[in-house]
Amino acid sequence: MQQYDPNEIIRHIYRAEDYQRLAEELLEPSVYAHIAGGSGCERTLKANVSELDRIQLLPRILRDCSSGSTRTQIFDRSLSHPIFLAPVAYQSLVHPEGEIETAHAAEATDTPMVLSTLSSCSLEEIAKNNSGLKWFQLYFQPSFVDTLDLVRRAEKSAYQAIIVTLDTPVQTVSHRAQKAGFRMPDHIQDANLTNYAPHNTIQIEQDESFIFQGIMRQAPKWEDLRHLLAETQLPVFVKGALHPADIDQLLQIGISGLVISNHGGRALDSTPATIQLLSAIRARVGKNFPLIFDSGIRSGEHIFKALALGADAVMVGRLQMYALALGGALGVAHMLKVLREELEVCMALTGCSQISDITPETLL
Amino acid sequence: MQQYDPNEIIRHIYRAEDYQRLAEELLEPSVYAHIAGGSGCERTLKANVSELDRIQLLPRILRDCSSGSTRTQIFDRSLSHPIFLAPVAYQSLVHPEGEIETAHAAEATDTPMVLSTLSSCSLEEIAKNNSGLKWFQLYFQPSFVDTLDLVRRAEKSAYQAIIVTLDTPVQTVSHRAQKAGFRMPDHIQDANLTNYAPHNTIQIEQDESFIFQGIMRQAPKWEDLRHLLAETQLPVFVKGALHPADIDQLLQIGISGLVISNHGGRALDSTPATIQLLSAIRARVGKNFPLIFDSGIRSGEHIFKALALGADAVMVGRLQMYALALGGALGVAHMLKVLREELEVCMALTGCSQISDITPETLL
Amino acid sequence: MQQYDPNEIIRHIYRAEDYQRLAEELLEPSVYAHIAGGSGCERTLKANVSELDRIQLLPRILRDCSSGSTRTQIFDRSLSHPIFLAPVAYQSLVHPEGEIETAHAAEATDTPMVLSTLSSCSLEEIAKNNSGLKWFQLYFQPSFVDTLDLVRRAEKSAYQAIIVTLDTPVQTVSHRAQKAGFRMPDHIQDANLTNYAPHNTIQIEQDESFIFQGIMRQAPKWEDLRHLLAETQLPVFVKGALHPADIDQLLQIGISGLVISNHGGRALDSTPATIQLLSAIRARVGKNFPLIFDSGIRSGEHIFKALALGADAVMVGRLQMYALALGGALGVAHMLKVLREELEVCMALTGCSQISDITPETLL
Amino acid sequence: MQQYDPNEIIRHIYRAEDYQRLAEELLEPSVYAHIAGGSGCERTLKANVSELDRIQLLPRILRDCSSGSTRTQIFDRSLSHPIFLAPVAYQSLVHPEGEIETAHAAEATDTPMVLSTLSSCSLEEIAKNNSGLKWFQLYFQPSFVDTLDLVRRAEKSAYQAIIVTLDTPVQTVSHRAQKAGFRMPDHIQDANLTNYAPHNTIQIEQDESFIFQGIMRQAPKWEDLRHLLAETQLPVFVKGALHPADIDQLLQIGISGLVISNHGGRALDSTPATIQLLSAIRARVGKNFPLIFDSGIRSGEHIFKALALGADAVMVGRLQMYALALGGALGVAHMLKVLREELEVCMALTGCSQISDITPETLL
Repeated sequence: MQQYDPNEIIRHIYRAEDYQRLAEELLEPSVYAHIAGGSGCERTLKANVSELDRIQLLPRILRDCSSGSTRTQIFDRSLSHPIFLAPVAYQSLVHPEGEIETAHAAEATDTPMVLSTLSSCSLEEIAKNNSGLKWFQLYFQPSFVDTLDLVRRAEKSAYQAIIVTLDTPVQTVSHRAQKAGFRMPDHIQDANLTNYAPHNTIQIEQDESFIFQGIMRQAPKWEDLRHLLAETQLPVFVKGALHPADIDQLLQIGISGLVISNHGGRALDSTPATIQLLSAIRARVGKNFPLIFDSGIRSGEHIFKALALGADAVMVGRLQMYALALGGALGVAHMLKVLREELEVCMALTGCSQISDITPETLL
Repeated sequence: MQQYDPNEIIRHIYRAEDYQRLAEELLEPSVYAHIAGGSGCERTLKANVSELDRIQLLPRILRDCSSGSTRTQIFDRSLSHPIFLAPVAYQSLVHPEGEIETAHAAEATDTPMVLSTLSSCSLEEIAKNNSGLKWFQLYFQPSFVDTLDLVRRAEKSAYQAIIVTLDTPVQTVSHRAQKAGFRMPDHIQDANLTNYAPHNTIQIEQDESFIFQGIMRQAPKWEDLRHLLAETQLPVFVKGALHPADIDQLLQIGISGLVISNHGGRALDSTPATIQLLSAIRARVGKNFPLIFDSGIRSGEHIFKALALGADAVMVGRLQMYALALGGALGVAHMLKVLREELEVCMALTGCSQISDITPETLL
Repeated sequence: MQQYDPNEIIRHIYRAEDYQRLAEELLEPSVYAHIAGGSGCERTLKANVSELDRIQLLPRILRDCSSGSTRTQIFDRSLSHPIFLAPVAYQSLVHPEGEIETAHAAEATDTPMVLSTLSSCSLEEIAKNNSGLKWFQLYFQPSFVDTLDLVRRAEKSAYQAIIVTLDTPVQTVSHRAQKAGFRMPDHIQDANLTNYAPHNTIQIEQDESFIFQGIMRQAPKWEDLRHLLAETQLPVFVKGALHPADIDQLLQIGISGLVISNHGGRALDSTPATIQLLSAIRARVGKNFPLIFDSGIRSGEHIFKALALGADAVMVGRLQMYALALGGALGVAHMLKVLREELEVCMALTGCSQISDITPETLL
Repeated sequence: MQQYDPNEIIRHIYRAEDYQRLAEELLEPSVYAHIAGGSGCERTLKANVSELDRIQLLPRILRDCSSGSTRTQIFDRSLSHPIFLAPVAYQSLVHPEGEIETAHAAEATDTPMVLSTLSSCSLEEIAKNNSGLKWFQLYFQPSFVDTLDLVRRAEKSAYQAIIVTLDTPVQTVSHRAQKAGFRMPDHIQDANLTNYAPHNTIQIEQDESFIFQGIMRQAPKWEDLRHLLAETQLPVFVKGALHPADIDQLLQIGISGLVISNHGGRALDSTPATIQLLSAIRARVGKNFPLIFDSGIRSGEHIFKALALGADAVMVGRLQMYALALGGALGVAHMLKVLREELEVCMALTGCSQISDITPETLL
């Protein structure tokens, strides 16, 4: 793993998206392919960005924004800004300190961090390095006992919410990464899962399907989610639900919020760009239900557009990894600062002093 | 004809479409051009794929797919999966054993194979190598006696249905293939037609048109199809009808099913992509009439979309030829396995356990 | 001027449009630029073709086309096929015999030829070389006496109709040609205009506009057209009218037909593609008013689409010049044969036996 | 700074846009990037041009344009043509004489010039070199006293109107320019601002935002504009208002006209192309309210389209800079002549004798 001089990197960044540009130039190609790639033909990956791009903003003039602020609230938490660090797995892939560096950046910039189940550092270690707002992303484990143990550990380490990811019961590989010859290095570990039963080797009968009778037999079902909700007092968000019927059912069983996500174009290809679905979902869940937008955010302008169409906050995944790879904690913190400033410029030029001013009326 | 090591080939395939990518790299360019090319400016060829691509899928969460299966039914036949091997002509062009290898792959994967009239192996020989589901694709011959003889032979060799192709009374050449210098090698024979009267050399008077008074004089008419239907007990499908008026008339004269096809973009250029027409045709023929979708399928995701818009099954032509060229029977079988798994992944991620769950509601 | 072996050229042509491809390879670049280029940014030039391309055709099956024919009628003339040779100026630019070769091709293929006022051979000489259907394209001259003299000469030489071109009172240069360094060679003459008063050098006062008080002062007005109609018994077609109000007025003053044209994208750039306007114009002028379609035709498929949307016939300009440049009379005749056969293939595959069968119902 | 031979330059210009083509070839790349670039991803920059491009014009025939003219009126001023020189800052960047050369060109071609607050020559010096129509573009200064002093100086130097630019309280950098390494040379001065208090260094507390509590604290508010209107008798135009609510309020407080502009794609990226908004704004302000169109004009055809959709006149910024860079006063004058002639050609071919004939009816 190449190490970079963060101060040198920062001098070449004019906007948050430049972290992607530099990463493409500097990272080992297969690692870049793994991070940047999406599933299938990358139609969803591309649509996530292009659909955000083509939304148009209508500037305002002469409005007093001198008491402006990005401070906002989600659930009952006050946030300095509406940007979350998404739960990206295996961050040691790009930096020797992995999620610890990310945690330092999160704390320094008052940014909520979501730690992945598939973290390369244990959730306890991250908690020691981040006294700020932190949530835990949960993948259901083959054994519910283990799943529950993860939750108990998160509770004990003062994680303030759980985000359950439900859109990838079957992994969809990144062909870009495969063609680039990417493989996860051996030194990277599932630090959170070391004491649990390993995933079963999938055993199927002849004439059975590896997908249906193999993988999907182990996939979580509605009863697992209900069970989880009954077992924890933490707010539970669901990440990856997009269909209206699924959302209705989630509301009914009492989740605390949604992360509107297509896994950054890494799950089912041909899924719509999340921004295409956002305003209909906002209309469905009502004005006050917490919605975090994920997938496609590359700039403060994108954040502004997602907020305008109904999100309370957004998550940033790939930019986080590029910044971590190139600049460690300093890179991530700088990327967040640039992103926030891009958002503030959009707010100032559209006359929005507060996050709550960012409504559909700011769009053409 | 170059021979490849199938095991080596298979190691480079991540999804079914990679057979096309590898074929473009490895095959003799004029042969690749002949297979990959379409008629005219290839507008229909491109639209077939791009119109499938742009349909969007809506994933579902937490559904129990552990008893999922691709098993389905068409007409009165049960199929392991809804994928047919399309009747591609002259398969000896890309593999010395031609259609025999394809037959082995069909049998091994429980895939219905449609043998072309223009097969480079006789229909009797293929029947010996394929005890599974096999249908016979029929081109009307200049003499109806010969046409009928083909049908009788197919009946005798236990082909279970006839597919009559009607969209190419005039051949439209592939300019891509012509420019690449493609010509059909001399060793390739119309193995099914050796005992029949050769096609007449077309004789026209001065001021007559080679197309109208030449070729079209020999083209089949409605009475020929009616005659055929009266002569055989086998179910007769028609391939290539797209116009509502033609479809109405076909229903009236009592065919057993339709293959919705534009000949893979190899017939009249500027014909719509078949997927543009599919749902209107399904509405026209009613819920239970057998419809097989052809032209443009390059992935399991495409299969899913065609099923969602009303097809009972799909046909795969070019992918079959690429896999046959590069891997023989093993290649074709592997391609079918990959394609089927791609379909299963789509089903799992959209929460469809059964083929009948794949409805328009799975689309955005 | 390079001379080519027509037989060699013909062997490389698979469809009419290949004449363009070969011309781009073989012609002196500035000459190719002059022929292929359009005015301004070539938006209209490109739209002419792309708007024809994107129209979709619906094939038919099993129809009896054995007595098919491209024979048709316009005005009171019977035509072997609905293809006119457009009045392209200065054909000696690409072949030493210029319009004489074109005339031989027209006669040999029974194709109506429209001779340009700006012909490099005199209209009398062309008449001697073409006993077939020929029309004369008229540009109003600065002096009406000269204009009328052109008409009288056309009448005397048995031209059967006049086409008055009205869309270029101001010439719009081809920037592509200018940048390629094109200039008309000195040896090329306005053979029809040698005895007439030369165009006045434009004299304008200070503060006057070269365009308005210069060029447009000499441009024809409605009274000139009325005057012309009163002076000749020949049918008069108008080429270049597109606005509904202009078309209404033309119908009222009694012209015999329209050529729907934007001068092949060589007049005002940003003019719509003619195919965008055709069906509305057909609706406006009624079922029986003669309409010839021009601008954008590159294939028989394009011809079919123009006829389907209301044209009685089409004109071919650039293809004519490419074929003349590369193959002389033989090239032009061959190009016409290929184009006609492309049309016949479209007719056969859409089940149209006669030109009158080509209706909007053949389109999707 | 390279000097060019204006006569040599002019020989390579066929249309106004060629000044851009030549500038891209000849200028120092970072300077070209600074002029040509836009903010963010340059979506607005591109849309400004492409949205103008795709509007279609409907030509007319046989109309008498011999008394045609581009003369028009805005407010109570008669103009030779509806083209303004936009207030481009720091023109000494591309020519040693900067705005003085532009002033000579303006005077020679009877073109209204708008001088920028950020001129590299003082407004008094420009006034000495331009006895013609000239307006002053005003940026509010941190101190209203200084702002008012600028206005008084403009009044004293016989500027006939004030244009207040309000769309860039926050500067949005051009990443293209940054990446090309552009920096403003030291020798360039804010000639109009030398006697004023320098802009305050922005001081913010910890936890304050540089954008909101820093820059936006100094930005003009509605009361500043009202104050300005009360203090001057000159007509005041506002540049940069696009939102209907802002336009309503501006009408209410009594401004004299609007410049419909998105700062040439140099302010908030994702702002709509101005031509998308123009006709709705014309409908909102009524038939007689002065509207000048800015952002995207690259040709006379673009001018025609903006006038057709409701503008009284247009502004030209980038073309002005390219022509100034390459040809000084002669270049700017020539560019204006070419642009005007392009407009006249459009008028002639659409049958518009007068600017007032250019209505929406000239469009498809």
